[in-house]
Amino acid sequence: MKKIAVILSGSGVFDGTEIHEAVLSLLAIEQEGASWQCFAPNIDQYHVINHLTGEATTETRNVLVEAARIARGNIKDVANLNARDFDALLIPGGFGAAKNLSDFAFKGADCELNPDVKKACQAFALEEKPAGYLCISPALIPAIYGSGAKGTIGNDAEIAKTFNEMGGEHINCPVNDFVLDQKRRLLTTPAYMLASNLSEAASGINKLVKELVRLA
Amino acid sequence: MKKIAVILSGSGVFDGTEIHEAVLSLLAIEQEGASWQCFAPNIDQYHVINHLTGEATTETRNVLVEAARIARGNIKDVANLNARDFDALLIPGGFGAAKNLSDFAFKGADCELNPDVKKACQAFALEEKPAGYLCISPALIPAIYGSGAKGTIGNDAEIAKTFNEMGGEHINCPVNDFVLDQKRRLLTTPAYMLASNLSEAASGINKLVKELVRLA
Repeated sequence: MKKIAVILSGSGVFDGTEIHEAVLSLLAIEQEGASWQCFAPNIDQYHVINHLTGEATTETRNVLVEAARIARGNIKDVANLNARDFDALLIPGGFGAAKNLSDFAFKGADCELNPDVKKACQAFALEEKPAGYLCISPALIPAIYGSGAKGTIGNDAEIAKTFNEMGGEHINCPVNDFVLDQKRRLLTTPAYMLASNLSEAASGINKLVKELVRLA
Repeated sequence: MKKIAVILSGSGVFDGTEIHEAVLSLLAIEQEGASWQCFAPNIDQYHVINHLTGEATTETRNVLVEAARIARGNIKDVANLNARDFDALLIPGGFGAAKNLSDFAFKGADCELNPDVKKACQAFALEEKPAGYLCISPALIPAIYGSGAKGTIGNDAEIAKTFNEMGGEHINCPVNDFVLDQKRRLLTTPAYMLASNLSEAASGINKLVKELVRLA
């Protein structure tokens, strides 16, 4: 059975992993006959957002501990993720990818990645193992794959421009499809950058995961 | 388009709504051509569990605010849920159903329901609108439907006995199926009371939601 490592960034669209995207991804992995293991960095979240009001709170929450909610406890510190143990990598979206896995939400093209996340993702790239990045998480790609990596990050002109400034090559893509950078075995889909409901997000995620598992 | 009200109890299997069950339910509702609106009680959670260690923390979290993470903010106070505005009701599982929507986890057969939740659920029963209860949430059924209501709450003998002590009529059911109490238009499926992965949970939830929307 092919094994897919999934990196989460918390639990909730505004300060962590987008929950729908994560669950749809795990379901799709199972339904393609593969297995999943979740990982997350053992760090504090950048902040905590009240998802009812959209406002920041004064709380402190840990990314790994909150991501464990999505994984039903079946999750490990990303510092212990070894690409050799897995056949492919998948990173769902949510602002956590841009606030906890990196500081893209605040620094844009000057963003840096969490060192453990960067090391783990680069190992998949170096081993030429396929990797899928959903929604806003393709913001991590240029720092991992260097310049020339093709991907989609939704069709927002400003974000696409930033992706290109970092060295990526942005490709617009409808919500029900994905972009494949064949040379890098790199897959991206807009998910909730474009989706207006779960079914739309699922349409692209299911296609991406099917190809990810096939390539693995 | 048929409208399904979904009552959540937080966000996380050990102290709130089981996230996979909630997302699978919302997806299934959409894929059956219906729409969903989430609700939750505006109360503090009974407690907060660290989902990595399984231990209780000293934090305080609000059920409605945390459930908003699953609903991407698209959620309302259950005190404002009017059964007349909806065609059916769905309640996913997770310990939140037994700790926040009721105190079943602590009081067993002597449990009481949160008054707003009870009122909303009873209105669906009185209006003879179909309702689906997943996983552990059928623990609420006897207090809502009175004695004789048929349902499944997983195949654990002790929990089934408690369900019967409260006046329910427990029926064992495999994870990929559901129990229909035709007279009460009441549907139940074991989900993560029996499921060992997402696909198994989805198999029963998808069948239940299909019938729920058909009956609505």
